[in-house]
Amino acid sequence: MSKSIKIGLFGFGVVGQGLYNVLKQTTSINATINKICVKDKSKSRNVDSNLITFDKNDILNNPDIDIIVELIDNADEAYEIVKTALKNKKSVVSANKKMIAEHLEEFYDLQKEHGVSLLYEGAACGSIPIIRNLEEYYDNDLLTSIETICNGTTNYILTKMSEEGLEYSEALAGAQKSGFAESNPRLDVMAFDPKYKIAILLAHAFGLFVHEKDVFNFGISNVSNFDFQYAAKNNASIKLIAGAYKKDNVVKAYVIPKFIVASNMFYNVKNEFNAVQLEAAFSDKQFFYGKGAGAFPTASAVLADISALHYQYKYEYKKHFSDTSISFSNDVVLNVYIRYKEKSQLEKLEFESIDEQHTINQTNYIIAKVKLKSLIKNDVNEWQDFFVAAF
Amino acid sequence: MSKSIKIGLFGFGVVGQGLYNVLKQTTSINATINKICVKDKSKSRNVDSNLITFDKNDILNNPDIDIIVELIDNADEAYEIVKTALKNKKSVVSANKKMIAEHLEEFYDLQKEHGVSLLYEGAACGSIPIIRNLEEYYDNDLLTSIETICNGTTNYILTKMSEEGLEYSEALAGAQKSGFAESNPRLDVMAFDPKYKIAILLAHAFGLFVHEKDVFNFGISNVSNFDFQYAAKNNASIKLIAGAYKKDNVVKAYVIPKFIVASNMFYNVKNEFNAVQLEAAFSDKQFFYGKGAGAFPTASAVLADISALHYQYKYEYKKHFSDTSISFSNDVVLNVYIRYKEKSQLEKLEFESIDEQHTINQTNYIIAKVKLKSLIKNDVNEWQDFFVAAF
Repeated sequence: MSKSIKIGLFGFGVVGQGLYNVLKQTTSINATINKICVKDKSKSRNVDSNLITFDKNDILNNPDIDIIVELIDNADEAYEIVKTALKNKKSVVSANKKMIAEHLEEFYDLQKEHGVSLLYEGAACGSIPIIRNLEEYYDNDLLTSIETICNGTTNYILTKMSEEGLEYSEALAGAQKSGFAESNPRLDVMAFDPKYKIAILLAHAFGLFVHEKDVFNFGISNVSNFDFQYAAKNNASIKLIAGAYKKDNVVKAYVIPKFIVASNMFYNVKNEFNAVQLEAAFSDKQFFYGKGAGAFPTASAVLADISALHYQYKYEYKKHFSDTSISFSNDVVLNVYIRYKEKSQLEKLEFESIDEQHTINQTNYIIAKVKLKSLIKNDVNEWQDFFVAAF
Repeated sequence: MSKSIKIGLFGFGVVGQGLYNVLKQTTSINATINKICVKDKSKSRNVDSNLITFDKNDILNNPDIDIIVELIDNADEAYEIVKTALKNKKSVVSANKKMIAEHLEEFYDLQKEHGVSLLYEGAACGSIPIIRNLEEYYDNDLLTSIETICNGTTNYILTKMSEEGLEYSEALAGAQKSGFAESNPRLDVMAFDPKYKIAILLAHAFGLFVHEKDVFNFGISNVSNFDFQYAAKNNASIKLIAGAYKKDNVVKAYVIPKFIVASNMFYNVKNEFNAVQLEAAFSDKQFFYGKGAGAFPTASAVLADISALHYQYKYEYKKHFSDTSISFSNDVVLNVYIRYKEKSQLEKLEFESIDEQHTINQTNYIIAKVKLKSLIKNDVNEWQDFFVAAF
């Protein structure tokens, strides 16, 4: 076994405490937490008070600390911490998807410049080792698509609506009560969280640094029982899918509710579970499934990253170099179901075709081919009484 | 990109040809096949004849060749090739599960002694990167079980029996016709193939070198429609599962048909697909799914191994060192369904209890707790008119 790793930890929320407990129970990894930097001085914590500090420099400028594990909520503060750590030549493990997605290219440069490593498996699909597999295992196979259910909150809500016939507001309230949704659920239910994740995965699947702002996201806050009835008629359910697809060296990516038929492996991904489906030229379809949300699943991903730093593991971002002919585009036409209230909504969008128009008990929906760019331009994610799902 | 790797290939069957074609289509890996050693001089091959040799020393003693890829059928010949290659300080990639399972501990020693690497991802679950994940990602999490559907032939037959109500002989004939079963299907249908695989996985999941002969295997050649009807009554199907389970530092492992209920992820693993389910203390349940059989899926695993040799990747067998308190045992009681013809069969076995006894239209079955050792001692895998499946 290599030398002991001394960890400086930022944040002591559920994941931080999970990591602390996991490290105590695991004998096979030679790592200890030397300092924990927290914010709230009034909170009592079930940990040796000598470990606690309120000054980030106690960790960032501490020569005894080998690596930094960043597990705080605030993405802006996390960014400053990670940037400083990398500049101070300390390798970092983080699970902060928003922060990683917003600054990935800069972090890539900083890693190269300072010869250190930033690992963030816990920022993608919880306990599922997808980044590592994309980096190491699917580095030569010709990947054509990656799709993922990577947001436990929305998957929990959609499962309850599908299985128990609940309306969205009831299912959300239940998720909040069970701890699967936050009191302000916007980041999850409006599909920002999965957008950060697919933006990160784009770098490792296709070698593309795409800013999360350039990726379309449409959430589930407008989904209704009516939509699930339509899905059921087609032997399908509705799942929030973050996907990226390559064709002829052009990659498109977006987060959108999709109709998932019963024979699709995603159909049985329920509640807080996450899953990833890859398609590649040679290995064909590959499917990974595991727990996304929760202290221990994320802590296990963080732990695997810490362990990898034992042997100086780095993401190589190989595809970023090896295939420079690949580009990202939102010039896409989607096959969709759109439920809407006012015809004026449809008039703002651009269609290639509207194939079906229906009104059932005063509820209107169409089946159409819509231009993704018109959904983006109109910021339809913020519209009321409007729901779009892709086939 | 690192320097070009020159490959000496043994065997040019479906997987070898698959690899050859994959390498031609892949630009991102810097590797070429320099020599191909084959046996049959009369066969015509769709490849530059300068590449072909019939003398294994043209590869084994060739200083221009960096690594050896072993893809022949004969396990004994493969063993001699791999042993010589490692002694000649050439790293090796192999997909020969029988050969690896039979000699794993010796190969482990040879790798250490000669400072070379033997990779064999394609020998476990086809295209699913399970060994790599066990080595790298689940190296610190506390794994409690690994179960896998890792034999495409039997899964194909069981799927056809379950979905189309075929009898075993009809389903086998269909599998042979479709290329999913060999003309002599014994290694597959008698569950030797999955036994080799779980023996290999034991080393990477729990750090145990267990000889395949010490692992119980029971195949599907006696399964009948009656058994599937019993399964269906319990909302289950029958799948051939190779599993290893750890409790209190004791690991048990066996290959046996199991009743898989519809809510289990294995239920939807159909036809030639493979899957692996892990349970671990922190990451909880993880499930991997992909194609097991076929030239391209296995070739993609072989390719990933070749690519890993670019950066001198080795299996570390960390668990073999880090947890020496773990032992293997067949001292196990299984909850089983047993269909039998003669009472004299049951009398040879040892039961903890027989909980149910049934006879339906002259077919007898019991639900019981049976001692695994008595199944092993009696070599029940070779019995006629006898079928056992575990719950």
